[in-house]
Amino acid sequence: MVMTVPPASNTPPSPSCRVLCVGAAVLDTLFRVRSLPTGQGKLLPYDMLQVAEGMASSAAFAVARLGGSASLWAAVGGDATGERLIADLSKSGIDTSGMVLVEGARSAVSTILVDDQGERLIVPFYDACLHHTVKPVTAQDVSSFDAVLVDVRWPELALQSLLAAREARKPAILDGDVASDGVIEMLAPAASHIVFSQPAAERLAGSADLVEVVGLLKRRFPHAFISVTAGEKGSFWFDDATGGIFHLAAPQVTVVDTLAAGDIFHGAFALGTAEGMPIGETMRLASMAAALKCQVFGGRIGAPTRAEVGAALLDWSARGLAVLPNGPALEIAECSQTQSRLF
Amino acid sequence: MVMTVPPASNTPPSPSCRVLCVGAAVLDTLFRVRSLPTGQGKLLPYDMLQVAEGMASSAAFAVARLGGSASLWAAVGGDATGERLIADLSKSGIDTSGMVLVEGARSAVSTILVDDQGERLIVPFYDACLHHTVKPVTAQDVSSFDAVLVDVRWPELALQSLLAAREARKPAILDGDVASDGVIEMLAPAASHIVFSQPAAERLAGSADLVEVVGLLKRRFPHAFISVTAGEKGSFWFDDATGGIFHLAAPQVTVVDTLAAGDIFHGAFALGTAEGMPIGETMRLASMAAALKCQVFGGRIGAPTRAEVGAALLDWSARGLAVLPNGPALEIAECSQTQSRLF
Repeated sequence: MVMTVPPASNTPPSPSCRVLCVGAAVLDTLFRVRSLPTGQGKLLPYDMLQVAEGMASSAAFAVARLGGSASLWAAVGGDATGERLIADLSKSGIDTSGMVLVEGARSAVSTILVDDQGERLIVPFYDACLHHTVKPVTAQDVSSFDAVLVDVRWPELALQSLLAAREARKPAILDGDVASDGVIEMLAPAASHIVFSQPAAERLAGSADLVEVVGLLKRRFPHAFISVTAGEKGSFWFDDATGGIFHLAAPQVTVVDTLAAGDIFHGAFALGTAEGMPIGETMRLASMAAALKCQVFGGRIGAPTRAEVGAALLDWSARGLAVLPNGPALEIAECSQTQSRLF
Repeated sequence: MVMTVPPASNTPPSPSCRVLCVGAAVLDTLFRVRSLPTGQGKLLPYDMLQVAEGMASSAAFAVARLGGSASLWAAVGGDATGERLIADLSKSGIDTSGMVLVEGARSAVSTILVDDQGERLIVPFYDACLHHTVKPVTAQDVSSFDAVLVDVRWPELALQSLLAAREARKPAILDGDVASDGVIEMLAPAASHIVFSQPAAERLAGSADLVEVVGLLKRRFPHAFISVTAGEKGSFWFDDATGGIFHLAAPQVTVVDTLAAGDIFHGAFALGTAEGMPIGETMRLASMAAALKCQVFGGRIGAPTRAEVGAALLDWSARGLAVLPNGPALEIAECSQTQSRLF
């Protein structure tokens, strides 16, 4: 027997929870091409889209699409791209009043080629001057939010934001993606929740066995909730209530574009956490939001609404299964029936 | 003995000549990378620049930088990129009042990767809807210009503009770059001057011997002045006064970025023609303007001023040499001394 999805996944609380996202804002130019380039010459794309995104920005958009209230702290340069980034993100329902305009710096831009096999070539440019200045962050600054999510693109502000969130007793969530040396190490101790990307987790743990990786990362950061998103391999987490490691398969979808899927996962995770959802339901919400996004070309534009995720979750019976470190996934018969125990 | 450069190359006439440029306007994103990509992954550029350019736009900028008065007819979409293109080109001294904003179309954008060997990967996107509508062009519309230059990106408007220029007895110049099938064939009969790029000329003539190519193209388009720009191989043209084919070596420069060099050549050529300069001096002006541009990263941004070109021309003794079809370049001893005869 499979339990039905609790209402929490379908209906956001009213008033909506507030999530602060801290980090990247980038003007992405996406080109769809038949195949990726292999040297010099001219490559003609058959579709193109320009969109303001970046890890924290896309996560904020996911929060807004899922019915939450999203605020973004990110820096843009004093150029036309910066104006466009702020305008585009504001139009997308994100509160951009906390964004910073840095005169003399260039806004971040990125070109992304996506081929018909879904493979990607990313050329991101970040001006080193963009993140030089960091405003101080106090517990009071973040006290009106129900969760704070930071990425690794603006480490100094991320650290201040996480520390302020901890002081304000709010969830302090780290998007643990691949970053410059030492950034994860600096931010992780300040986080209450860490959602690692697979490459970052494997690199940090020095292992490619994701169950083992989760265990190793939990031992390294025992104070925090630890999870790893691994795309089509699903997601893994350490369940602090039971001490078990859990795996949730990825929803089966026709993948068109995985760009920003991880960010949508993080945004949904932050919103679920802000709403106080049980962790298993939070992971289901985040997994489904990310999966639905992958069916649409256009990076974060494909982020689904709460109603779309809710409908898809009704049809999706998969739940987190406890798995043994260093071994195959162990199906626990009752895990899909006794949600309260497992989640 | 080498003749000194005539004042025409240094000092533009007053009031400045007016050149109308018709064709492309593109928001280019230039990335400097150590080496070009060879498949999927992430490629970190070490420099980046966004600039409004495209063939006709860059040519118009060259005209303005060289002291001419430049107007641009080009289409942009009804999007943020379109606003930026018009603002950027206006700020660069180009009269954009004749530009067209096409609601429902996306502005043209292009990403260009330039590696440390100067090799390029270009990913250009043109919305098919951008050039659907063409306004009628009369001789009166172009009568206030001293020359009209068209590229191959908006063929229908280019054709009307060339025909109007011919009717108004103004130089009607075609930038004969590689284009869709039949475009050059459609435009060339309406042009009074054609400056081919090397690949387009070779493709059209079915030969890789540039002297032979010039002869073949002259026989095909006998009504027009015929020339070919060939980058570091210099430029070639058919001299209508003597019936000879001439070659002008390229100035020796340290090449950093050849992007838009051809367009700068065309803009300078159009201005020289508008000013009524002898053809040999026009080719020297255009060659030097393009060469100086190559020393600077940033596409059309590197276009030199008239004073910069004038100073460089004083130090550059090279002049067009008559060459024999199908044979090696023939040095004519007196060619650098009897400019009036050769040019």
